Amino acid sequence: MATLNVDLGSRSYPIIVGADLLGDRALLSPYLAGDEVVVVSNDRVAPLYLDRVTASLKDRRLNCQILPDGEQHKTVGTLQLVFDTLLDNHCSRDTTLIALGGGVIGDLAGFAAACYQRGIAFIQLPTTLLAQVDSAVGGKTAVNHPQGKNMIGAFHQPVCVVSDTRTLVTLEPRQLSAGLAEVIKCGLICDELFFSWLEDNIEKALAYDEEVLEYVIIESCRHKAQMVARDEKEVGERALLNLGHTFGHAIEVATGYGNWLHGEAVSAGMVMAATMSQKMGWLDKAQCDRIRELLTRARLPIDPPVAMRSADYLRHMKADKKVSGGRVRLILLEAIGRARLVSDYPDALLHEVLGEFSG
Amino acid sequence: MATLNVDLGSRSYPIIVGADLLGDRALLSPYLAGDEVVVVSNDRVAPLYLDRVTASLKDRRLNCQILPDGEQHKTVGTLQLVFDTLLDNHCSRDTTLIALGGGVIGDLAGFAAACYQRGIAFIQLPTTLLAQVDSAVGGKTAVNHPQGKNMIGAFHQPVCVVSDTRTLVTLEPRQLSAGLAEVIKCGLICDELFFSWLEDNIEKALAYDEEVLEYVIIESCRHKAQMVARDEKEVGERALLNLGHTFGHAIEVATGYGNWLHGEAVSAGMVMAATMSQKMGWLDKAQCDRIRELLTRARLPIDPPVAMRSADYLRHMKADKKVSGGRVRLILLEAIGRARLVSDYPDALLHEVLGEFSG
Repeated sequence: MATLNVDLGSRSYPIIVGADLLGDRALLSPYLAGDEVVVVSNDRVAPLYLDRVTASLKDRRLNCQILPDGEQHKTVGTLQLVFDTLLDNHCSRDTTLIALGGGVIGDLAGFAAACYQRGIAFIQLPTTLLAQVDSAVGGKTAVNHPQGKNMIGAFHQPVCVVSDTRTLVTLEPRQLSAGLAEVIKCGLICDELFFSWLEDNIEKALAYDEEVLEYVIIESCRHKAQMVARDEKEVGERALLNLGHTFGHAIEVATGYGNWLHGEAVSAGMVMAATMSQKMGWLDKAQCDRIRELLTRARLPIDPPVAMRSADYLRHMKADKKVSGGRVRLILLEAIGRARLVSDYPDALLHEVLGEFSG
Repeated sequence: MATLNVDLGSRSYPIIVGADLLGDRALLSPYLAGDEVVVVSNDRVAPLYLDRVTASLKDRRLNCQILPDGEQHKTVGTLQLVFDTLLDNHCSRDTTLIALGGGVIGDLAGFAAACYQRGIAFIQLPTTLLAQVDSAVGGKTAVNHPQGKNMIGAFHQPVCVVSDTRTLVTLEPRQLSAGLAEVIKCGLICDELFFSWLEDNIEKALAYDEEVLEYVIIESCRHKAQMVARDEKEVGERALLNLGHTFGHAIEVATGYGNWLHGEAVSAGMVMAATMSQKMGWLDKAQCDRIRELLTRARLPIDPPVAMRSADYLRHMKADKKVSGGRVRLILLEAIGRARLVSDYPDALLHEVLGEFSG
């Protein structure tokens, strides 16, 4: 078991990573705001792990809300179901909301916690690699709008994050790969050594090697926690964590939420960002090839859907949160291990990249 | 024109009060985050003042969203209309949202600004006395849930508040009185001298005397700004501002949103709180009479709806945000000018008060 601290002053919190942590009552109880607890999970995760979690909360006034699984349910409508449960049970401001599941559950329950009575405590129990390395850490919560991903949300930090690596055993291989996309992203943004380490260990990660996965989670969280601590509200450096996400969100929205997994879209998006970086003269061909190769070995797509046209990307990218002053800002790579937020790229280069990737 | 500062560190902002301020372009422009502006108003206020505001924003990329008027529209559904407008117009994070209207518009637009892309700038242009003295100041934003008022919301401070006293001329007398309920509340909580001054000047306020109203607004905002600066997230002292609101919210919810105005419900609620305070041995009969008399002179109801029973109050009060550890916390008066948050009152006294006020 390893513990990392996200340093945010009065809103600091620990990330606890290890095997068989769910159901450890001693772990959660210091973080519960009061007697009332609501666990939010989905119909895929709940049958596997809900009993373990609720058994550890037996002495509390406990309610559960099981939502349908999938990105397509990350909506204001589903959010309302959580509010209904909170109000039907007369939950007070001292209620702690616990998110048990992947990124969708974490983002949605986190946003519910941010808004209910203007903010209650919440705990993340991420059960997918993607959530453990990325979405459960950093306090970004949101739901989607038909016109854009994560458009409605809040910054609301959890009071703790408990990542049980044992839950990854029940994760579909496709979901494990999707999580590895964010892990590889982390190496690309700020740690070339970690990227190299991943080149040496990616097959072990895919084989659910528990030690390798624990290291992967801790390293990814460590990098993310540092960036979040320095820039909680994403006014600067934190935006780098969105490498591949501007293109990736366009893919997710254009293909309909849930068809491409978030990590898959980010994978293809990172290849597009790398290609653009190469055209800027920053990456060379060998580096681009290394990126494509590692993603391929991680069983991730490196090409966006063939049906997407340049105009599809541009339309969705213009609705992205990273637009500033009417200009789409891109996160590009100066090298493997060094990302940069760029507004002053030549439009012609962007169009060239989009053209190349259009079917 | 008078300016007050709400002191919240990096989130500090001015409250500017005076006659004929709407349409003064120089006033708003330092507070606009960028070129994009969305004005949210309602179908009662927009025909009166929207032109003046939009004329002052002619050089900006401007969109307007006119919502139906009334508390019954302060819902997640209406909120979605604002999000749709923001997304239909590809509004970026640099957009400034301007709320032009009363408390409902301010609370709803403020919450939309809090959530859109996890938070954009917003400006309050309150056009009712209630909003000018209370709801536009302090950063509380929210929408209602069928089971409770302001249950879904956020703390999100405006970047400035501009209160044009001239807009009060078009306010219905009933709405002016409703605003005075919050003004009287302010005197009751923390300023006996102000309460006495109101006893001397209430008729002038009701007659729309501009100087009297400007003083009323500045004094109320000054008290509120101090409390908010000391306790932004309402973990302590700020809760005192809810005097009369626990009973009042129960009245509003039980009678259906919009039938009793918020200020009217708060007025009856304050009389109930004063009665409870008398039973606690804190207020004497003369003080209770002074409170009832001033509210009556302000043309406010001092009795709740006859149809409400004790059980109705208790049911709605239990869903209130001020519940802690299963106990309804009450704000009571130790004297005129001194309020106190109380959890350890005898239940029998509360039931006695509810019984007396039940029809």
